[in-house]
Amino acid sequence: MQIDVITLFPDFFASPLESGLLGKAIAKEIAKVNLVNPRQFALDKHHRVDDIPYGGGVGMVLKPDPIFAAVESLSVLPKREVILLTPQGCPLNQSILQELATQKQQLVLICGHYEGVDERIRYLADREISLGDFVLTCGEIPALALINGVIRLLPGTVGKEESLKAESFQEGLLDYPQYTRPAVFRDWEVPEILRSGNHQAIAKWRLEEQKKRTQKRRPDLWEKLYSSKKPSGGQ
Amino acid sequence: MQIDVITLFPDFFASPLESGLLGKAIAKEIAKVNLVNPRQFALDKHHRVDDIPYGGGVGMVLKPDPIFAAVESLSVLPKREVILLTPQGCPLNQSILQELATQKQQLVLICGHYEGVDERIRYLADREISLGDFVLTCGEIPALALINGVIRLLPGTVGKEESLKAESFQEGLLDYPQYTRPAVFRDWEVPEILRSGNHQAIAKWRLEEQKKRTQKRRPDLWEKLYSSKKPSGGQ
Repeated sequence: MQIDVITLFPDFFASPLESGLLGKAIAKEIAKVNLVNPRQFALDKHHRVDDIPYGGGVGMVLKPDPIFAAVESLSVLPKREVILLTPQGCPLNQSILQELATQKQQLVLICGHYEGVDERIRYLADREISLGDFVLTCGEIPALALINGVIRLLPGTVGKEESLKAESFQEGLLDYPQYTRPAVFRDWEVPEILRSGNHQAIAKWRLEEQKKRTQKRRPDLWEKLYSSKKPSGGQ
Repeated sequence: MQIDVITLFPDFFASPLESGLLGKAIAKEIAKVNLVNPRQFALDKHHRVDDIPYGGGVGMVLKPDPIFAAVESLSVLPKREVILLTPQGCPLNQSILQELATQKQQLVLICGHYEGVDERIRYLADREISLGDFVLTCGEIPALALINGVIRLLPGTVGKEESLKAESFQEGLLDYPQYTRPAVFRDWEVPEILRSGNHQAIAKWRLEEQKKRTQKRRPDLWEKLYSSKKPSGGQ
């Protein structure tokens, strides 16, 4: 997969793209990340990429022309999606990641200022994505989350089984409690059942724990799961 | 503010903590970020920090002992909060960031593997936070989002006015459309009203746009705002 990132802070990405599983996947060329700075497309002598807002107000607004020029400088591959990272977009979720990972060959991510982006930049984007209902200083962190979440799903990044396992959000349930050695740590013991060797009982216990945990911690997810399984209404 | 990060990938944070507004805030010592690798607290000769899960299953689970030792090695300041980053936590939002930025002096962020963390590690945490309903390879990106969102709110990071302006999520509305020069870009014109100089009319237009946009794009936020303003029911 080709991932082009339009960013005023290409240096931001240096260490995260070299670290951990993501770094390994990029080294294996499972995905290629190409960083493009719109400043090099700002044609005035100061390479200005932002300006004051029309109508007044605080903060600077990202100008449309350098962003258009940066996006238009890229090669266009088949199955391409241009995404604007903005707090006004659709909140990121696992099915968006899944869709992008399986159906796209090229992602173009426009980071922009988080404080303000000229409205006309939206016309470039096929889709607008938000990381969540909070404000950050920049779109680079949301872009990084999206890059990580998509590359993680590409074949070869993590073991096949592991990849399948962790699709828990798509099933709509939170994960079950996990334990490893030691069996007793500071008086806290690993539940007996997990040491029983009875795999059927363990699977049943885990599913029950997933349900209990989801109901308790995320009634919104539980409600969504419930309503999607009972589309015709009823108890 | 003191921010301690318990991470198996301290190198991950190098360039993001030096970049943009966050880099400037850290250089100004508005916040201090201290990276601690639990591997140095793993006492066996291989410095092992994870192990296979009890009860079977794929993926490795982060062991409790090195994480406890790493957290317990830190100085404890008043108004401290220990936070575990996990997809099973409360989804991050602007009021959590606001609360942490205004009421805490020390944050301890436990990144952990995203695939699995020994259940007993939860006992260390005052609070569990999720970045959203999706799976990443690591907790480092959620930690970085939290660090950025909190430091952004600390006095001195951004201009006072700007900081006030961008609290839009707390008012429960998405931002209004922003425009900057040129007035006409590829046939797309900046709305007349923003060039009128009539500040009262501009303010009214912007609020209307915020409402329209929130209703259209995020009916969930709109619903929340509506119900909080009409606690006694009614229309």
